[in-house]
Amino acid sequence: MNEFDRIAKYFAPLAAEAGLCLQDDAAVFEAPEGCELVVTKDAIVQGVHFVGDEPPAMIAQKLLRTNLSDLAAMGAKPLYYLLAVMLPKTCDDAWLAGFAAGLKADQDTFAIRLIGGDSTASPHLCLSVTAFGTVLRGQALKRSGARVGDGVFVSGTIGDARLGLQLVQGAALQVADKNAAIARYQLPTPRLALGQALRGVATSAMDVSDGLMQDASHIARASGVGIRMIAEQIPLSDAVKQAGISVEQCVTAGDDYELLFTAPKDAQVEATLIGEVVAGSGVELLKSGVPAVLQTLGYQHF
Amino acid sequence: MNEFDRIAKYFAPLAAEAGLCLQDDAAVFEAPEGCELVVTKDAIVQGVHFVGDEPPAMIAQKLLRTNLSDLAAMGAKPLYYLLAVMLPKTCDDAWLAGFAAGLKADQDTFAIRLIGGDSTASPHLCLSVTAFGTVLRGQALKRSGARVGDGVFVSGTIGDARLGLQLVQGAALQVADKNAAIARYQLPTPRLALGQALRGVATSAMDVSDGLMQDASHIARASGVGIRMIAEQIPLSDAVKQAGISVEQCVTAGDDYELLFTAPKDAQVEATLIGEVVAGSGVELLKSGVPAVLQTLGYQHF
Repeated sequence: MNEFDRIAKYFAPLAAEAGLCLQDDAAVFEAPEGCELVVTKDAIVQGVHFVGDEPPAMIAQKLLRTNLSDLAAMGAKPLYYLLAVMLPKTCDDAWLAGFAAGLKADQDTFAIRLIGGDSTASPHLCLSVTAFGTVLRGQALKRSGARVGDGVFVSGTIGDARLGLQLVQGAALQVADKNAAIARYQLPTPRLALGQALRGVATSAMDVSDGLMQDASHIARASGVGIRMIAEQIPLSDAVKQAGISVEQCVTAGDDYELLFTAPKDAQVEATLIGEVVAGSGVELLKSGVPAVLQTLGYQHF
Repeated sequence: MNEFDRIAKYFAPLAAEAGLCLQDDAAVFEAPEGCELVVTKDAIVQGVHFVGDEPPAMIAQKLLRTNLSDLAAMGAKPLYYLLAVMLPKTCDDAWLAGFAAGLKADQDTFAIRLIGGDSTASPHLCLSVTAFGTVLRGQALKRSGARVGDGVFVSGTIGDARLGLQLVQGAALQVADKNAAIARYQLPTPRLALGQALRGVATSAMDVSDGLMQDASHIARASGVGIRMIAEQIPLSDAVKQAGISVEQCVTAGDDYELLFTAPKDAQVEATLIGEVVAGSGVELLKSGVPAVLQTLGYQHF
């Protein structure tokens, strides 16, 4: 099956009208009246972001969800995406069918549709998605609005993706539900509803992808403030506690894809208050009232 | 230098306001009033689209220009782009500085600005750009509008990129200006002005990236017509003729990035009339009045 037959068979059925049946050089569309576009582009690489022997549907979903998480962080509603697949020969038709099935499932779950992209041979499996969302004009959440005195909040629990990764890597940890823990690493849930609910409430927001501490440092820098978090307030799951993963490990591990945001301390939000915005710069974690010493703030690619 | 310092040093200076200083999860912007967005996404891979030992500025420019060529094919005016770089350790700071300089040069030449993207480690160098352009509502050129009786046109000359590739690969060919021929392969010129001039004139259009015959077959299929081209009318450069590259070789080779389009035969356009749209399907090349036999229609990745 050649490149064009593959696109027609596996990807054209996923396409929205704006994608012109994936037959054209580009897609054409307009944002809804009164809306701005929010656009993000993430790439994932075999051996860096995934091992490569995962089910292809899972790889597709993780790819799409990391992008959807960026839309969530800006308070955007998903609209369309573009997909570039750089495929080694080992990705045969069965692999592509599974990959497309994963995309289809998440398109339905998250109300996003394919409008174009690229397909090319590659000695190494690399994948990139560009996701488009919409927000009412001026309503996008950014990293730069945190104000001294705001509370610092995080959704869900932190550290589960680290636990999941350790389990995938074969660590012998005592966890009641290993599959649930692994799913937190392999198949994160973009916090889209929360992100949209935070418009007009949060003063800054981002998703937790590289480690809570490191990610908080981005908000601090973009906003020109400091962030102080309290170790005892960081929400940890029972599984993480059972496995004996420390709070220091949890706040410096990546891939949780929860939302980290600042808002007035009394804001009614579905998230946990974990600290406050302070004058100054940088980020610190207080444990038993004194600054914790951390080996790193989070994951770095280079 | 870590990931964030690298982005701040090499890429943030390239960013438009919509890119939020490349500090956020996504970019936020609106298309100008009355305009639709045209979006395209291409990926290039070391060993497939480039050797890897080219100057990094040249790799950057080829990456950007293949995307700009897609915008040209739709009649769009360039606006913004997103960039994903998947970098092996061999791409050091000097490489990145050169790569960014190439982007900067082409940003200035083609009036396009960076608004975001992704940077990740990779065992293999892969690059992807998502380019955004604008057209007045309903004015985008598509592949689907060719009508029986239209003329078929191509800009510039065809086959020069094949010649350039052969020269890069060390072929001993008689060519007066080898550097000019190599540049046609390494640094294609997106036909943006022509694409914009074709709005309201061309009935279909695309760029020639995989071979004139194969690309014409896409217009034929999307439009539900046949395309007949005349070998003696295909514009070949003096260099290609000197080198003895046949017209059959020229029309089945990729990377020319000229515009192929259909329009009324008497349209006043800066391009060469090379054939006509006929009833039926498929594409044929008449040479001395009889169908030429071709081994392939063009380049295929799989």
